Amino acid sequence: MARWEPGARERLVVAAVELFTEQGYDATTVAQIAERAGVTRSTFFRYFPDKRELLVAGQDTLSRLLTEGIADAPVGASPLEAVAAGLERASSAMGAMNRELGPRLKAAVAASAELQERDALKSVGLAAAMTTALVARGVPDPTAQLAGELGVLAFKRGYAQWSESDADEALAPYAVAALNELRKATAALG
Amino acid sequence: MARWEPGARERLVVAAVELFTEQGYDATTVAQIAERAGVTRSTFFRYFPDKRELLVAGQDTLSRLLTEGIADAPVGASPLEAVAAGLERASSAMGAMNRELGPRLKAAVAASAELQERDALKSVGLAAAMTTALVARGVPDPTAQLAGELGVLAFKRGYAQWSESDADEALAPYAVAALNELRKATAALG
Repeated sequence: MARWEPGARERLVVAAVELFTEQGYDATTVAQIAERAGVTRSTFFRYFPDKRELLVAGQDTLSRLLTEGIADAPVGASPLEAVAAGLERASSAMGAMNRELGPRLKAAVAASAELQERDALKSVGLAAAMTTALVARGVPDPTAQLAGELGVLAFKRGYAQWSESDADEALAPYAVAALNELRKATAALG
Repeated sequence: MARWEPGARERLVVAAVELFTEQGYDATTVAQIAERAGVTRSTFFRYFPDKRELLVAGQDTLSRLLTEGIADAPVGASPLEAVAAGLERASSAMGAMNRELGPRLKAAVAASAELQERDALKSVGLAAAMTTALVARGVPDPTAQLAGELGVLAFKRGYAQWSESDADEALAPYAVAALNELRKATAALG
């Protein structure tokens, strides 16, 4: 059972992921999603421009939180320490709903070329947001771009591990642990 | 003036990029591209499923060459040495046409959300191909994934520098130099 109290926006996301899983992304209409969520079509369009954007909802919020976390990191923080601060800030926006829906969302994306493309663009956008925030801190290119890419990779890996874990934990420690693991792996690149 | 002798496939790519640049991606039809290239619509469809795929043409070839180059690297090669071998192999497929069209292609992608998505998915595909090839060499996760991401970043950065250079050079040295630059940047991540 979900322990969060879903509003219309959350209900729409849950309904969409359920329908995508049951009958596929292509076969699912906005009308079906709205009906399942118990809202009108016009309520749907108040929250999302279309069914595809629904699945990447929150990208703007994530980008903003990553950027703010990186900007607010202590002056002496290394690029990856700043990225870790961004991941911690962004993780704070990911609650029980994200954790519960994660694996189903992943399955829906894996089954749809259209969603894969949108999801790939989301990753590019998050990396660019982190790179820009690092450059604003004075981190030179290509270190900033590299750190931004590591940040996205860490967020994805941490999210996957968090989604698959049994415990009732926060995302942040998973994302930061994934970043540390990637940092250590750089020593093995040769 | 182009120094390569274009066949129908190359003429279609050149015509498409010209039209995308002149009038935008959305306003350009397959019929217009075929007409500009001096071929029939059915010839277009012999080479490409649609106008969007035309712009990411060669992804399968690139993935194959990256994979083969990584697989054929010497047994003792480090992960990044193997990636460098993949970049060199893949660069061999990029000739004068790619070099000349690169900047215009980049402008067309920058101006179209649909192309940005397809382009982002292409990057994900190339990274996955390299990661898989590295895992097949026994490179453990997450080093393999990290090296695959660095490979894509190096290919993109090297390609951009190559496209903007004046000299009549090959892509390979640019891609390998970009990879070395990224490798050095890992030391500054903190």
